[in-house]
Amino acid sequence: MLDTEVAVVFQPSGRTVYVLPGTRLLEAAAGADIVLDQPCGGAGVCGKCRVRVAGECCSPTPAERRMFDEGELAGGLRLACQTSVCGPITVDVPETSLLADAHQILDRAVGTPPAAALDPGVCKRYVELPPPARGDDAPDAVRVQRAIGPVELDLAAVRLLPGRLRETAFRGTAVTDGHRLLDFEPGNTESEHFAVAVDLGTTTLAAALLDATTGDDLAVAARLNPQTRFGDDVLSRIVYAGGRGDGLEELRRSAAAAVDALIGELTAAAGIRRDRIYEVAVSGNTTMQQLFCGIDPAALGAVPFVPAMGPGLGCEARELGLHIHTRGRAYVMPVIGGFVGGDTVAGILATAMTEEAGPTLLVDIGTNGEIVLWAGGKLTAASTAAGPAFEGARIMHGMRGSTGAIEKVVVDGRLRLNVIGAVPPVGLCGSALIDAAAELLHHGMLTPQGRLLDRDELPPALLPDLAERAAHYDGKPAFVLAPAGETGTGKPVLLTQRDLRELQLATGAIRAGIRILLGRAGLAPEDLQTVLIAGGFGNFIRRKNAQRIGLLPRRIERHRIRYQGNTSLAGAKAAALSRLGRRRAEDIAQATEHVDLSTDPAFHTAFADSMIFPEA
Amino acid sequence: MLDTEVAVVFQPSGRTVYVLPGTRLLEAAAGADIVLDQPCGGAGVCGKCRVRVAGECCSPTPAERRMFDEGELAGGLRLACQTSVCGPITVDVPETSLLADAHQILDRAVGTPPAAALDPGVCKRYVELPPPARGDDAPDAVRVQRAIGPVELDLAAVRLLPGRLRETAFRGTAVTDGHRLLDFEPGNTESEHFAVAVDLGTTTLAAALLDATTGDDLAVAARLNPQTRFGDDVLSRIVYAGGRGDGLEELRRSAAAAVDALIGELTAAAGIRRDRIYEVAVSGNTTMQQLFCGIDPAALGAVPFVPAMGPGLGCEARELGLHIHTRGRAYVMPVIGGFVGGDTVAGILATAMTEEAGPTLLVDIGTNGEIVLWAGGKLTAASTAAGPAFEGARIMHGMRGSTGAIEKVVVDGRLRLNVIGAVPPVGLCGSALIDAAAELLHHGMLTPQGRLLDRDELPPALLPDLAERAAHYDGKPAFVLAPAGETGTGKPVLLTQRDLRELQLATGAIRAGIRILLGRAGLAPEDLQTVLIAGGFGNFIRRKNAQRIGLLPRRIERHRIRYQGNTSLAGAKAAALSRLGRRRAEDIAQATEHVDLSTDPAFHTAFADSMIFPEA
Repeated sequence: MLDTEVAVVFQPSGRTVYVLPGTRLLEAAAGADIVLDQPCGGAGVCGKCRVRVAGECCSPTPAERRMFDEGELAGGLRLACQTSVCGPITVDVPETSLLADAHQILDRAVGTPPAAALDPGVCKRYVELPPPARGDDAPDAVRVQRAIGPVELDLAAVRLLPGRLRETAFRGTAVTDGHRLLDFEPGNTESEHFAVAVDLGTTTLAAALLDATTGDDLAVAARLNPQTRFGDDVLSRIVYAGGRGDGLEELRRSAAAAVDALIGELTAAAGIRRDRIYEVAVSGNTTMQQLFCGIDPAALGAVPFVPAMGPGLGCEARELGLHIHTRGRAYVMPVIGGFVGGDTVAGILATAMTEEAGPTLLVDIGTNGEIVLWAGGKLTAASTAAGPAFEGARIMHGMRGSTGAIEKVVVDGRLRLNVIGAVPPVGLCGSALIDAAAELLHHGMLTPQGRLLDRDELPPALLPDLAERAAHYDGKPAFVLAPAGETGTGKPVLLTQRDLRELQLATGAIRAGIRILLGRAGLAPEDLQTVLIAGGFGNFIRRKNAQRIGLLPRRIERHRIRYQGNTSLAGAKAAALSRLGRRRAEDIAQATEHVDLSTDPAFHTAFADSMIFPEA
Repeated sequence: MLDTEVAVVFQPSGRTVYVLPGTRLLEAAAGADIVLDQPCGGAGVCGKCRVRVAGECCSPTPAERRMFDEGELAGGLRLACQTSVCGPITVDVPETSLLADAHQILDRAVGTPPAAALDPGVCKRYVELPPPARGDDAPDAVRVQRAIGPVELDLAAVRLLPGRLRETAFRGTAVTDGHRLLDFEPGNTESEHFAVAVDLGTTTLAAALLDATTGDDLAVAARLNPQTRFGDDVLSRIVYAGGRGDGLEELRRSAAAAVDALIGELTAAAGIRRDRIYEVAVSGNTTMQQLFCGIDPAALGAVPFVPAMGPGLGCEARELGLHIHTRGRAYVMPVIGGFVGGDTVAGILATAMTEEAGPTLLVDIGTNGEIVLWAGGKLTAASTAAGPAFEGARIMHGMRGSTGAIEKVVVDGRLRLNVIGAVPPVGLCGSALIDAAAELLHHGMLTPQGRLLDRDELPPALLPDLAERAAHYDGKPAFVLAPAGETGTGKPVLLTQRDLRELQLATGAIRAGIRILLGRAGLAPEDLQTVLIAGGFGNFIRRKNAQRIGLLPRRIERHRIRYQGNTSLAGAKAAALSRLGRRRAEDIAQATEHVDLSTDPAFHTAFADSMIFPEA
């Protein structure tokens, strides 16, 4: 019974998701594109994610008992970060619990264990220095060193110091990055110490503001990566960067300006000063990171896809065009290979997968599927060119997961659709593509070879609602997800034979990649103890359906497949808040063996095999 | 007899100097303002300082025997860096042995032992990297690290790398500063590796170009410090820097532009590329260094005269406005106190005085007299405000040591003058002031209390030539150095009673400072094993006369008083060529006890006593 998904209905939006019992409400809400506020990171202490439930859920946790009295609990008040679903349930989400404008971007890591203790690279310390006097003419620099230890004072610091010390009557807060003095701020500003984590997605930029004294999330913001106007995917941006004299600079500047604007949003939301942010950690795929840093990505566009950077890059934030403290630091994640970038390193860091006892797989499903295997004390990573099918591209009525997209397809006696924004559908996004294919396979309308059956080939016991949707497009069988009368365009939303071929390619690439990594480690899929799903898209797919079409290994109990949310952002947070986190990131990048699937002859065989959907 | 100076006549200029037997010709030439070329630093191997002598000099050294055959030696060919004076001698200096346009600035350290082995901070190494290939997709950064070791690649390096590696077909010269990659130059440029040392004098800027692969001096250049137009002395520039919004920046920029122009002269003279210079070391007094770095010097202008910088400052050369290699480094010397600056640290470093077995004194005679004592394993340093008398200021007919200045006064039966440029005199410079006072004291025309005798008080046996020169100015006795008919102005060049009072103040300040430092160490002047004279001016004074007026301790054998030339430049050279040199400089600055004379009550008593000239 544990294997049966139950419906969770969110009000007032009416959005419904189907989840396994035991799923936390916060995760279920994310599946319905409802991102709840959780500045405490899911610790159950801030009370920001409070909801009112009617239906079956687990007993209140100690954190909930501290937050609510008996009357409130009886009335259904719960914390979404604490409560798990037990059966069908309705959840009333107050507006105050919603994260403002987080639309389709899941920019919070859900259920991620802390990757490293709080140990920021920048330290602040209030000191009162003895002012110079007759008999004490020690240089300003030495006076500071005596108080805070042997820090280096570079030119900028020594230029700043004489004025600052005298303005503050020799009392202020020394800001250091561990070995250099960055500033001497008037008064005691120890408590104003912030950091920013940035996830540079190819499509979406997300950023979180962190309190470096507590580790708390203070605000999250996201927006479209403006580089998309120069090309949707990594390769087209590489071409753009190389094609014109200032293409690289144009790309760099557009992303920098957008991230800088995000920082502005964050500081405005949290009501803090920009110059109290001292560190920014940036995570993205190799090309996004190079473009953001203004590093020529040409060698990433051709075999053997060579990155310029390997280890993480420490620099001044202003060198990247970011306006935080004038001496604030930036850290760009280390990369493993041309297509296994800082976001993957961040994912390994954030999921703490190397602390798992048994073989563990991390899969980031997207245009490039990144796959990491932790087994036998070793990390191996590969990327496969899954193509843009999961993001809705090359799918006739495909679209991104935005308003009007069918995001879920369930056959429950008849076909049911979930549409983002609860409007008439205009297309389908990746998760619905997987759902639809899984259901069609399950009901025998689609063969394991990927052929959509024609009307006259349909199995006799097929549900009438499905049989009625068999159609044709371009001379080949097609499937009507939504008839013309029910859509927002006045035309039907179709799933074509060609769409299913694209899905086969995308699925096959990831499946083959997983198979190769497992094979090199001498493992079978059922040996996996845990499968971690990373990335914004991964969060919206239904595990069961992903397994049905072979995208995820079938013979794994579903509770061992865990959604990890935006692990790129979560890893960036760990790096922004912790020197240990950065050291771990460097160790991860160095230790991970990069498997180049394109040169592995076994991959091509595995890819061909993996194009076949599993038997129902 | 050793104590008697002998005449050395230089041809074709006819300039004459009087030196002690044993003095090297190079040093004697410097005393005559003739700066000989010596790219090998006086090692006797380059042959650039060859001269032809007639008269008494020591036997040829092994280096000279290697350089010249018997016929050449018999014909008088010698190396000025090797040969010492034994008796009266005439030296013919070929034009080819002269250092071009070194005019009044002694910008070479004469007889300075190498302060540190060749060990430049920047390293160059030619490498051939394996280009990327299928199966070898290591990042560019990692490829370089594999070849040259664990260097850090900062943003600028990673931006540069992809293009450079591919332009050079992965073969080139890695330039590092020990821990960071600065460049990857096409081809093998290991032999093109240069450094520059800069002496930031209050009045004069001097710079030397060094070959960092051999340690050789390649060229030297000097010019007036353009900051003099904002004020002659340190204090007036501090006032200027603070008085206007952009005064500091104006001062900084003018010195930076002048030093940058000097670097241009040096590279043109040596025929090398500016971007093959990777390091610049800068030495000057505390205020000059702060102004050069753009660091507010206000606190240096008021009690207790606090510097901003203590330890040496490492930065990018371009941050200081210097155009060498774009990633080239600069090092600014550490300072000891507000008036004991990087030039003093450089002097201690260059003279290697801490390697002397017995108590050793280093004296830099100028507007500020800097005094360093090495005794009992300890360094103590002080500065005294001698005032500008030695530089010709506040002296009625005083002038700097330039054309037309009487630079030497000798009484040899009658008064003889040496005039710079062999023209009719227009004034006198500091060395002549000391000479004149010493001769007047010696011949009884000046009392130890500093009173110039009137015509009717003169001793009966006085040389007639001196007696005839007794005159009056402003109602007080004066002395005619050159009568109106023999001068370039048509007016007499006089030495007035007031001039002698200024000299008493200047001499007394330095003498008192020396006395205090010695007293604190429990030493008497005769305990000194060595007295080292530093600075451009110090090089031109006659030891005997400086002792006669009490400027230098009297009871020290004259050969223990050694000229060291421009030790600020020599120390900067050691820092430019050697990491060990820089570490030593830091150690020196840290270890030297700064004695603040202005707060020492004993100083004022000693100063009053020291105003009295020693008895003849």
